[in-house]
Amino acid sequence: MPKIDLDQVEPTNRTTYPMPFAAEMGRRHFRRLGAAGGLKDIGVSHVVLEPGGISSQRHWHEGIDEFVVVVDGEAVLVEDDGETVMRAGDCALFPKDVANGHHLVNRSARNCTFIAVDGRVSEGDCHYPDVDLHWDNSNGRYTHKDGTPY
Amino acid sequence: MPKIDLDQVEPTNRTTYPMPFAAEMGRRHFRRLGAAGGLKDIGVSHVVLEPGGISSQRHWHEGIDEFVVVVDGEAVLVEDDGETVMRAGDCALFPKDVANGHHLVNRSARNCTFIAVDGRVSEGDCHYPDVDLHWDNSNGRYTHKDGTPY
Repeated sequence: MPKIDLDQVEPTNRTTYPMPFAAEMGRRHFRRLGAAGGLKDIGVSHVVLEPGGISSQRHWHEGIDEFVVVVDGEAVLVEDDGETVMRAGDCALFPKDVANGHHLVNRSARNCTFIAVDGRVSEGDCHYPDVDLHWDNSNGRYTHKDGTPY
Repeated sequence: MPKIDLDQVEPTNRTTYPMPFAAEMGRRHFRRLGAAGGLKDIGVSHVVLEPGGISSQRHWHEGIDEFVVVVDGEAVLVEDDGETVMRAGDCALFPKDVANGHHLVNRSARNCTFIAVDGRVSEGDCHYPDVDLHWDNSNGRYTHKDGTPY
């Protein structure tokens, strides 16, 4: 059945960030719909952000196109150019290799639900402008900005 | 600005289907957000289906993963296993190479808005189970099912 029964896909709030950054991710709950539905070339996540939650540390990817659409509630998109409220139906696109760190923050009083899609073609490093964190894709690990591992 | 101003992206109801199939597409209006936002690895379309509109002829792709999420209104997903109503927040996934023809039909009295995403990695032929139509990707053209061009 192509339509996904969300109740059949277990949500999780796990993260692979090292501490202390992992501690900020507890109010993000996601379902990996793409994997559940058998997609190989695009990743699709159904994400619920509780009030106070963040979608990720602010970041940008080498090699990975990203897209988000809000389906319920509202969140604030934070990126280099400032902040933008996003509500149901609003869309944002983050082309690969563009050095504009971004994430969503739920500053409202109720849950925000959004869909995040990414390309699965040419993953590279991931950059975190606000924190001492870097994804070293060639070694498959997080490091400090100076390259030392966590 | 990563958030897309939909008013700045011209909608279109064009289609490359040959007649008579093209004549059924006039109530589908889409904006190519992915191209507008600079994405290369994933296609993103913002689609408004008027009452009576169809998202496409019922089809399935070789080589292209597809995903849809309804953001407003409702539509009926028609595929080999039957029909399923989809409302705001409902998601459906169509893995590449799975021979299950699908499309959305708006049988309601008001517009339905949805987002359609596809992978841009390995496009192949497209199959249309209900009509005498085939996308021949090696030659970049629509043909009849017997291979003769339109």
